[in-house]
Amino acid sequence: MTSLPIDPSAATSPTALARTPRTRPVRLGDRVNHDLALIHAIIDEAPICHVGFVDDAIKGHGAPSPMVIPTIPWRVGEELMIHGASSSRMLRRLQEGGEACITLSLIDGWVLARSAFHHSVNYRSVMLFGRPRLVSEEAEKRAALDALMEKIEPGRAAKVRAPNVQELKATAVLAFPIAEASVKRRSGPPGDDPEDMAHPVWAGVVPLRLTAGEPERDPAQVAG
Amino acid sequence: MTSLPIDPSAATSPTALARTPRTRPVRLGDRVNHDLALIHAIIDEAPICHVGFVDDAIKGHGAPSPMVIPTIPWRVGEELMIHGASSSRMLRRLQEGGEACITLSLIDGWVLARSAFHHSVNYRSVMLFGRPRLVSEEAEKRAALDALMEKIEPGRAAKVRAPNVQELKATAVLAFPIAEASVKRRSGPPGDDPEDMAHPVWAGVVPLRLTAGEPERDPAQVAG
Repeated sequence: MTSLPIDPSAATSPTALARTPRTRPVRLGDRVNHDLALIHAIIDEAPICHVGFVDDAIKGHGAPSPMVIPTIPWRVGEELMIHGASSSRMLRRLQEGGEACITLSLIDGWVLARSAFHHSVNYRSVMLFGRPRLVSEEAEKRAALDALMEKIEPGRAAKVRAPNVQELKATAVLAFPIAEASVKRRSGPPGDDPEDMAHPVWAGVVPLRLTAGEPERDPAQVAG
Repeated sequence: MTSLPIDPSAATSPTALARTPRTRPVRLGDRVNHDLALIHAIIDEAPICHVGFVDDAIKGHGAPSPMVIPTIPWRVGEELMIHGASSSRMLRRLQEGGEACITLSLIDGWVLARSAFHHSVNYRSVMLFGRPRLVSEEAEKRAALDALMEKIEPGRAAKVRAPNVQELKATAVLAFPIAEASVKRRSGPPGDDPEDMAHPVWAGVVPLRLTAGEPERDPAQVAG
């Protein structure tokens, strides 16, 4: 794979984020862009993100350590939200000013090439850098948690028992600006070399998709 | 959710890894274990992992930054392998002695509770810490890349055009010991509070599964 030149207009278009030293592609630049609509769409679709940060206060561990924690991402306007127990290590470190790299990856398929070398994965991913703000004002926090319910199942926020004061206190919601971020993606058939095109093995893409199965009602639920 | 006491036998059992300050649960200890067979099974199933490390040499960026990069994980015996272009930033940093936190997350379902607070995700995840060794000896490197082919499609290693010397050189394979790692998982129905059990909203689990679709043959492929 060779890196194609990047469209210089992308950085100044109102529909794309500016590139930074961290979101500039190092290689495979043809797979990278900073398109805001695409960033939003990937955040909206992803059921999970991986939050990376440096923990320099692990009890009994003498050095700072990278940590990568999976959690549910969702979006409210121009911010990416995460949440969890107020007592969680990750949320405490990030509230103390820690910087995060949040990566969301949607897998679209295995790419089966003729050569071992050109096997790959079709995917759409976002890498986002930043420091969060704590969503502390009650109405905003409730609205953010409602938006999470809506992501899990549209219409659900109005149906569930809303958080009480104790639950709100036990939950921390962090908002990251969608400002320093990039998209990396691959799609389409394998990119074998011309001299391998006749090699006798099936080549193509096996699509992969996160699929919902038959809902399993809680056995404890009263019927109706 | 309260943290249950951890079985003290787990740390000394030959089938479980020892706990370390980084793999000891901070909270929700009932969801965490160090079972080696389960760690292996999650690595073997996961099509993707997220590799976290600290990059202190980003050109034009004045401070170290956490980075989280998605890549394909696979296992050879007691090691977790990743690979990529020898020129990739991640693989270079890790070869320079950088420490990684590699997290693999399999999503098993949305957990729809009666209360907003108890909504959750069913999942199985592994967090693994360590520094890699570079797999440089040719036979070992070929065997490792064959194992990757076998993960993508059993039987495929023997069918594809094997890597040539140039491709082997352009590819770096890193092996992480499966030594400091933990499993975190959730399964089963929502854990609503007793006073919410009659709240009139559907509660249960919507199973999620990464599912393969109909294979799409490369349009450029000669039929047969």
